[in-house]
Amino acid sequence: MKEVVIGFLGCGNVGGGVWNLLEGFGKELAHRDNLHIRVKKVLVRDVSKARSCAVPQELLTTQVEEIINDPEISIVVEFMGGEQPATEYMIRAMRSGKTVVTANKVAVALNWHRLQAAAQETNVGLYYEASVCGAIPIIQTLNSALQANRINHMMGIINGTTNYILSRMYERGENYAAVLEDAKRLGLAEPNPAADVEGYDAAYKLSIMASLAFHARVPFKKVYVEGITRLTAMDITCGKEMGYVLKLLALAKREGNTIEVRVHPTFIPEDHPLAQVNGSFNAVYLHGHACKEMMLQGRGAGDMPTASAVVGDIIHAATTDVHVHPTFANKADADVSLTFDDNWSSSYFIRLSAADRPGVLEKIAGWLAQKDVSIATMMQKGSVDHGRVPLILITHAAPEKSMQAALAAFDPAVCTVESMIRVEK
Amino acid sequence: MKEVVIGFLGCGNVGGGVWNLLEGFGKELAHRDNLHIRVKKVLVRDVSKARSCAVPQELLTTQVEEIINDPEISIVVEFMGGEQPATEYMIRAMRSGKTVVTANKVAVALNWHRLQAAAQETNVGLYYEASVCGAIPIIQTLNSALQANRINHMMGIINGTTNYILSRMYERGENYAAVLEDAKRLGLAEPNPAADVEGYDAAYKLSIMASLAFHARVPFKKVYVEGITRLTAMDITCGKEMGYVLKLLALAKREGNTIEVRVHPTFIPEDHPLAQVNGSFNAVYLHGHACKEMMLQGRGAGDMPTASAVVGDIIHAATTDVHVHPTFANKADADVSLTFDDNWSSSYFIRLSAADRPGVLEKIAGWLAQKDVSIATMMQKGSVDHGRVPLILITHAAPEKSMQAALAAFDPAVCTVESMIRVEK
Repeated sequence: MKEVVIGFLGCGNVGGGVWNLLEGFGKELAHRDNLHIRVKKVLVRDVSKARSCAVPQELLTTQVEEIINDPEISIVVEFMGGEQPATEYMIRAMRSGKTVVTANKVAVALNWHRLQAAAQETNVGLYYEASVCGAIPIIQTLNSALQANRINHMMGIINGTTNYILSRMYERGENYAAVLEDAKRLGLAEPNPAADVEGYDAAYKLSIMASLAFHARVPFKKVYVEGITRLTAMDITCGKEMGYVLKLLALAKREGNTIEVRVHPTFIPEDHPLAQVNGSFNAVYLHGHACKEMMLQGRGAGDMPTASAVVGDIIHAATTDVHVHPTFANKADADVSLTFDDNWSSSYFIRLSAADRPGVLEKIAGWLAQKDVSIATMMQKGSVDHGRVPLILITHAAPEKSMQAALAAFDPAVCTVESMIRVEK
Repeated sequence: MKEVVIGFLGCGNVGGGVWNLLEGFGKELAHRDNLHIRVKKVLVRDVSKARSCAVPQELLTTQVEEIINDPEISIVVEFMGGEQPATEYMIRAMRSGKTVVTANKVAVALNWHRLQAAAQETNVGLYYEASVCGAIPIIQTLNSALQANRINHMMGIINGTTNYILSRMYERGENYAAVLEDAKRLGLAEPNPAADVEGYDAAYKLSIMASLAFHARVPFKKVYVEGITRLTAMDITCGKEMGYVLKLLALAKREGNTIEVRVHPTFIPEDHPLAQVNGSFNAVYLHGHACKEMMLQGRGAGDMPTASAVVGDIIHAATTDVHVHPTFANKADADVSLTFDDNWSSSYFIRLSAADRPGVLEKIAGWLAQKDVSIATMMQKGSVDHGRVPLILITHAAPEKSMQAALAAFDPAVCTVESMIRVEK
């Protein structure tokens, strides 16, 4: 029996899940893989705090050195979350020869090049399956199974909180604020949900996934981010009537040396595989030149699904001697051999409040045509109210900047833009 | 730059795909992974035959020894298909110290214990991602990412030919024979489609997947197999009206030490994730105690998707020194520490042709009740014809053998059983 001794940095929700998974499943794992995983020390801020797992008090420490300097510990598992001090602790652990397994998307997205450099210096492993989409094996799939592919297109529903909110708005016609409150009550949204609903959580994950898919570092700050906070039940209902489902999509596309990465609410056709991914599920849809279309779907959050990914990484790290690290066309964030394009092409769903008088449609079509945007579908929705009538347009594909410029030129006396939502076909 | 020298056993459709993938993508791979994959020799039956790829004539050989005994070749890639001589060639290659990558489900399913023993003897790798579901990384996911899970349930659409046929029958109400002919014309069914439509192709794959999921060898001969050849447009249409989609499902369940594995036509609710998997797509849905629900979906066949898996395995094999092999509770087929249960529990869709006279329903319900089978839904479909009327029943869950016994007791003067299709809820 091989024993691997590990230390935890942090012991919150995910750390507790990993502890419980190792406790409840350790014997079976030992029997199967001839491997015993022993947790020796657990770094916490407060040793007296109540926890979701029964870690013995004597394992707890508030001193990170007790883990980093312990020669018996070969793998350090990080669940602290946030950029610092997690990043520095992981780097110090790797410099003292320990492999790191982390669930921390923020630290990986923001400091990956430093983390990987530290791993390569001492030839240890750096594993982060749990940092993106919980149990879904997207990191391993990109890093290993799909190595023979040029991936040119990736779209994901990679935030469970927003997908839960949008699914309920779609299914029941409810309003954003009401569903968000319910999601908080059910534990599906944080008390402060900003990172989720503003799209930043998805953007960190997209930065990691796109980097692996494109074999080029895609810095977090290059990701265009727009959240779901301004979406209305009316937009979702109108889209539904036109055959579209609204999702917070993370999109990454590559053509030659040009990359676009964006997180924003997106209408997709109701028969798209991602349109069926509802509730708190996550899914990643991609296209590679050899594998063709592929989709991985599962639980993107929660203590046990995330623990599944963490312990999978620990077992892999403990049973291999060769830690493979991805290579990137651009090593650090600053070294830009690629172009990040923010003038992507998209179709657009536009909801307008227009004056109810002759000639209005002509004017709107004219302003759009001046920027080479053409209308694919138009629908008048509901009746006249205070001399204004709601109009919905869906455009043909147009460059983002043309669309923005066209909308900026609309005369408020003729119509005001209530919503602009991108459409992916 | 590391060079890995490989030999092909066979060069048909998949071999040609791998050759083309390496040709078209080799430079990018070399740049990315600092790895050059060189094909040195290709075993074929007939050196003069026309091929789908431009392998230079001088690489072709009809002598397997030229590959197996070549000390420069470190990885042998097998595309011959069929149990023999592929199995013997792979074993000989591994005994001479070469890692084997194979796309051969039949050889792996039938001779896995011998193949793995040969790999372990000489400490080489044995990789078979391409043997199950083409590009979908189900082998790697089961072998590595989901190691921390007790998987108790797995359902897959793992044969593209039958899924194409059933999707068209569902969508357009067409008949089996007509769609099969079309599928042959489109190259989606073999000229002799028996292995696909009789369910054996899916059963080989299920034997491999279930073995990995359950960490126990699930011999092919333990898989219950029933194909799609007797399905009628009428059954599919009736099921559709009741909210069900018909799929050829591969099911594997484990409870304690009891395993059930079966391939048969199955009605699933139209809102099940697998119900949306149409055309020639494959998908595997599973449940693990930590990861919870997960589904992987993609291209399960075709030269390039299969080549994606083969070359992924070659790259992995070439960049690792530690070849991990799965461990099984029962080492060989004969060593049975587990029970394989053929009296599973299921709901059933039964189509009857019943006499149109009073008391018939009572009799049918009575025969079912005698075997403890109870009716959940009943529908009369269509009108009386020659004194007979079509009746559709859906039962509550019942043991398979009770259901079979109940149907055997039906009096043909009262009703005949036209179809019996299992329903998974």
